Amino acid sequence: MEGLATRIAPMMSMGVQDFQGWMAAAQEEAEAALAAALPAATTLPHRLHSAMRYAALGGGKRMRPLLVFAAGEISAAPRAALRTAAVAVELVHAYSLTHDDLPAMDDDKLRRGRPTCHIEYDEATALLVGDALQTLAFECLANIPGLPPERALKLVSLLARASGSLGMAGGQAIDLAAVGRKTLDQPELELMHAMKTGALIRAATRMGACCGDALAAEEEASLDCFAKRIGLLFQVVDDMLDCTASTATLGKTAGKDAAAGKPTYVSLMGLAATREYAETLRASALAALKPFGARAARLAALADFIQQRQF
Amino acid sequence: MEGLATRIAPMMSMGVQDFQGWMAAAQEEAEAALAAALPAATTLPHRLHSAMRYAALGGGKRMRPLLVFAAGEISAAPRAALRTAAVAVELVHAYSLTHDDLPAMDDDKLRRGRPTCHIEYDEATALLVGDALQTLAFECLANIPGLPPERALKLVSLLARASGSLGMAGGQAIDLAAVGRKTLDQPELELMHAMKTGALIRAATRMGACCGDALAAEEEASLDCFAKRIGLLFQVVDDMLDCTASTATLGKTAGKDAAAGKPTYVSLMGLAATREYAETLRASALAALKPFGARAARLAALADFIQQRQF
Repeated sequence: MEGLATRIAPMMSMGVQDFQGWMAAAQEEAEAALAAALPAATTLPHRLHSAMRYAALGGGKRMRPLLVFAAGEISAAPRAALRTAAVAVELVHAYSLTHDDLPAMDDDKLRRGRPTCHIEYDEATALLVGDALQTLAFECLANIPGLPPERALKLVSLLARASGSLGMAGGQAIDLAAVGRKTLDQPELELMHAMKTGALIRAATRMGACCGDALAAEEEASLDCFAKRIGLLFQVVDDMLDCTASTATLGKTAGKDAAAGKPTYVSLMGLAATREYAETLRASALAALKPFGARAARLAALADFIQQRQF
Repeated sequence: MEGLATRIAPMMSMGVQDFQGWMAAAQEEAEAALAAALPAATTLPHRLHSAMRYAALGGGKRMRPLLVFAAGEISAAPRAALRTAAVAVELVHAYSLTHDDLPAMDDDKLRRGRPTCHIEYDEATALLVGDALQTLAFECLANIPGLPPERALKLVSLLARASGSLGMAGGQAIDLAAVGRKTLDQPELELMHAMKTGALIRAATRMGACCGDALAAEEEASLDCFAKRIGLLFQVVDDMLDCTASTATLGKTAGKDAAAGKPTYVSLMGLAATREYAETLRASALAALKPFGARAARLAALADFIQQRQF
């Protein structure tokens, strides 16, 4: 982790230990807020609520909540609102994983080191779990504490736009259609990822900032530029991990994309060039944060974390 | 239709022809608004958008939009807001039908006289269609025209609450668990239907009223009482049609509930008693509308229509 310390120290005047402590606390806070937002497993219908908790709790890097919290530091956003925004984004992420793992989609049996929801429960339940997690995300935003209604409505709009057919769900549709098409070129691959993974990461960042003081137009543009780049960086790193890490480390099936004939950055440009591309993305993401100075320290550290993650 | 005319004439001073004309115009308006809200089939990803339009357009009674429009007459709600609220509720309804028809759920091949979405397209696409239709519903409400943001946010809250794990999705989970359990008693059956079908019908009514002038607390309670009863009435009639109407008339597979061993009102109390129960529900629904006088004429006519529908 020394490399990380050296690289982020000049920008953020915050040590790696500080960052790791912040991250652990924020992850714990997100987990507790998710647990509180989800109906108890003792609430009827029991099986559905138990399965919703299984799918949403107890694992994951909570990358999107971390981005919400970190982006909120740019606009001095109130904590309670950030917490709810973080919960909403993570619920949408959890719903998408639950549905993506279904037999009709990626047919995956392992997620976060545990059986996927339809394996642990059943397909019909997993389908309803995804549906109800998505609904709960919007219900949370509709009742977000401490924000004027027009801001809350803006959060609903950002999250919906990012996760619908012009965002995450659309990207998943393109991904499914691309299986076996090794001829996908880099612009096509980037459009797919911008929708499938990038849109929600971008939304998480914008939603965090949207919970606080209004940003100037050029600040918003800079933040969005950062968000787009780390969204892409996240996917580029994912592609590298899929072919270099083990199933045990990832907590999900490794080498799956290559086996399914899915086009990836690694299959397109090779491992070395992909690693270089990741470094370029990280640098340009950090450059976009310059206008914010120290307020962007956590976001900068997160960009490094995204590049260096091993799972 | 003479029976209908005689019964509703005293309350509403509106002829059946007037009502039928209003209904046809409102259905057309809802269809056009849905068509405008859905991304064009020429927008990427093409197949997903084409399938979303297939699933949401060109059929259905548009009962929930009709309720939104009719309830809006109680509070003098602006038409543009009602139209968007109607679209949002119908998108949620269309998403639920698309997912309910999937092989892991009800495994249905026919809907509105056409192949279901996963038959016409494929399972993965139908899954994403449902997901994206739900998201679009909330995106529409987040951008509803002509309403103050706190009202728009209230609509998001009403729709989310009604369709999530404590409403529609939860009712579907109970329904799945009840297959083959012929011992379900009437209170259990009513709880399931109140969640599975009733909650969204109730939300449609409340959302329509919520688009206009604020109602007094006792007016809101009366309207909600009406909405609960027609929600139940809708399901009771559905159960009768499932065992008396033909597949051709229904546009969906008839006799399916009985074949699947699902408990229904007819299996529980017999056809004659079910018909009587429907009449009681209609009468008590109409009684709840008394405080609104002529403003509730359309809602009253809709209650009659729900009882007398043949498909």
